[in-house]
Amino acid sequence: MKNIAVLGSSGSIGQSTLEVVRNLPGQFKIVALSVNSDIVKLKQQIDEFHPKLVCVGNPRQAAKLSVSLGSSVKVLSGAEGLEELVNYRDVQQVMVAITGSAALAPLISAIKSGKEIALANKEALVMAGVLVMRLAKEHKVLIRPVDSEQSAIWQSLGGQNALSVKQVYLTASGGPLWNLPRSKFKQVTIERVLRHPRWKMGKKITVDSATLMNKGLELLEAMFLFNIGVEKIKVLIHPEALIHSMVEFNDGVIMAQLSATDMRVPIQYALSYPERLANKFAGIDFYALSKIHFAKPDLGKFPSLALAYQAARELGTMPAVLNAANEVGVDRFLAKKINFLTIPRIVEKVMQRHSKVVNPTLNQIMCADAWARQEAFALSS
Amino acid sequence: MKNIAVLGSSGSIGQSTLEVVRNLPGQFKIVALSVNSDIVKLKQQIDEFHPKLVCVGNPRQAAKLSVSLGSSVKVLSGAEGLEELVNYRDVQQVMVAITGSAALAPLISAIKSGKEIALANKEALVMAGVLVMRLAKEHKVLIRPVDSEQSAIWQSLGGQNALSVKQVYLTASGGPLWNLPRSKFKQVTIERVLRHPRWKMGKKITVDSATLMNKGLELLEAMFLFNIGVEKIKVLIHPEALIHSMVEFNDGVIMAQLSATDMRVPIQYALSYPERLANKFAGIDFYALSKIHFAKPDLGKFPSLALAYQAARELGTMPAVLNAANEVGVDRFLAKKINFLTIPRIVEKVMQRHSKVVNPTLNQIMCADAWARQEAFALSS
Repeated sequence: MKNIAVLGSSGSIGQSTLEVVRNLPGQFKIVALSVNSDIVKLKQQIDEFHPKLVCVGNPRQAAKLSVSLGSSVKVLSGAEGLEELVNYRDVQQVMVAITGSAALAPLISAIKSGKEIALANKEALVMAGVLVMRLAKEHKVLIRPVDSEQSAIWQSLGGQNALSVKQVYLTASGGPLWNLPRSKFKQVTIERVLRHPRWKMGKKITVDSATLMNKGLELLEAMFLFNIGVEKIKVLIHPEALIHSMVEFNDGVIMAQLSATDMRVPIQYALSYPERLANKFAGIDFYALSKIHFAKPDLGKFPSLALAYQAARELGTMPAVLNAANEVGVDRFLAKKINFLTIPRIVEKVMQRHSKVVNPTLNQIMCADAWARQEAFALSS
Repeated sequence: MKNIAVLGSSGSIGQSTLEVVRNLPGQFKIVALSVNSDIVKLKQQIDEFHPKLVCVGNPRQAAKLSVSLGSSVKVLSGAEGLEELVNYRDVQQVMVAITGSAALAPLISAIKSGKEIALANKEALVMAGVLVMRLAKEHKVLIRPVDSEQSAIWQSLGGQNALSVKQVYLTASGGPLWNLPRSKFKQVTIERVLRHPRWKMGKKITVDSATLMNKGLELLEAMFLFNIGVEKIKVLIHPEALIHSMVEFNDGVIMAQLSATDMRVPIQYALSYPERLANKFAGIDFYALSKIHFAKPDLGKFPSLALAYQAARELGTMPAVLNAANEVGVDRFLAKKINFLTIPRIVEKVMQRHSKVVNPTLNQIMCADAWARQEAFALSS
């Protein structure tokens, strides 16, 4: 039995993590849970999984929950509470499923306390990949990726040295707008953008999937996680989203990882690694599949991906700026303040105006992030 | 520098092995070579690779070569010579690239002397897989497969236990007759059968590829090599022959190995394992590829594959009988004595007439092989 803390347990990945744990009785014990504010969902999870410790980001909601639970579970709150939870002695593995930059602090705490880490959050690595990976190396912590593409690269590498890698094919479904002509991008509605053909995900990531910025963020993640240069990472459109990524080695061999489009598969592997545990998830019916497709992404049609490549070449504070400006751009698009084409334009302008710090501290990264948000907001108002 | 003996160095796999060695200076040293009778080719190889020991199957050719070489290289001959060569102290790895049942004796010698083994021969495993694998286990010898499909399964397994395997997809290009209607099989010419769309190979294996018996033999090989039950091995038609096979684990993950259709890739991996060594072999251009296809094999159209499944379920001496009867059938087809449809009919009849030995000795296997050849020959005359 491995003792697990799930940070962000009310979100999509958090809930799927608990489903994986529920499906494998006797393998994992949930000892801690955290949510930002959804105490209704958290209460249900407490009733089912009986954690010893929970944390609620919002202090008022934390207090409310504490009253309703009595003394059966310890309720923490805020950033300090989250740090205490991550450091809790009984926790062996931390599933970091918090979205956005809020994951950075608890991730760093978890690394410093030497816990096993399953990382579903993208932003922490995109913003501070160099720092996070350096810290993980110092503390001899393996970061197990949860994102399906990163998990695929991890599994395709099969423990082999990054030096033997010729290139990585980071696959992309192409997102909801892959077949839409660029001439229609300006008028495209939020509803149209949110109709993803393969994955059911949150709004932010679905918009990122439509601009291909999601793949751009994954490009940065992959660089840091596997210590592979940006020039070795190729994005490959694969609309069926069955091959989740591939690694080509310098001997001409390509290893690929495939599965049904079901996040429970990479979540379970991050929890169970190095073992594989039997489950009843649906597989792929190759006899019925008939064919799968590949294509080269058009960086002119999807400039967000070109911007991510640029940030990946520049590094320093640039990836954090890319990420922050994009986040604001997507927010403003979802608030109907800007059109779809304006999202990458804002990112591009903010990147142009940014004075990059080459080897930034965590504080400098957070400052660049805050600055970029402000700039992006001003540009989209 | 690893010292290598290549058995069958004048054949297609033997020559490709020497090409791999030539391309990787400083990695491998050829210390021994063997051919059946082609001393002209062997002489060229001796001049280039300077082995210490060679063996020629045919004693007359061996004597001829010995005279022309003088005392610079020791020339052995026959089955005893091959055994001496395999046991030679300086040999660390033996590449078994002899075709047919003639590989069985030197393979067993190599296992008993504890050499590293790269196995390109199919028949030895098909005929005596249980015995060979038991011996390999006893002598703690890992058999490194060279066949592209077996290498793909090996690499996709990535060292994981066969118990965590849900199923194996053994891919097949479909061979030269995949798209030809069954109604035309009776009249199909040898020339048409020998036009393989993906691989350039010998005649025997190309005919086996047309009947799908080649995949049937690989099914048996895979069972023995990886200790995976026949009910877990599915043949999957994949005409582009880029995915060389896949392993589906019980956690829903499928690992696949891909490469260009170039035998040097799996040959090199068998030599260099566990390392991967850089080479200049062409990769796959996924951007240009556009799509790849999958289909279920039609066992009615290709009864040889159904017969191989039957032999795999029956085991004992049945796989040896299948293999021997098929070999005669293919010979007789190439000699224009029977038509294409008669090849599997002969195999089926010989299997029906065979009184299976359940746990055969090597001698009983060789007897079943000889008996099946006689029966098949009689049926096709």
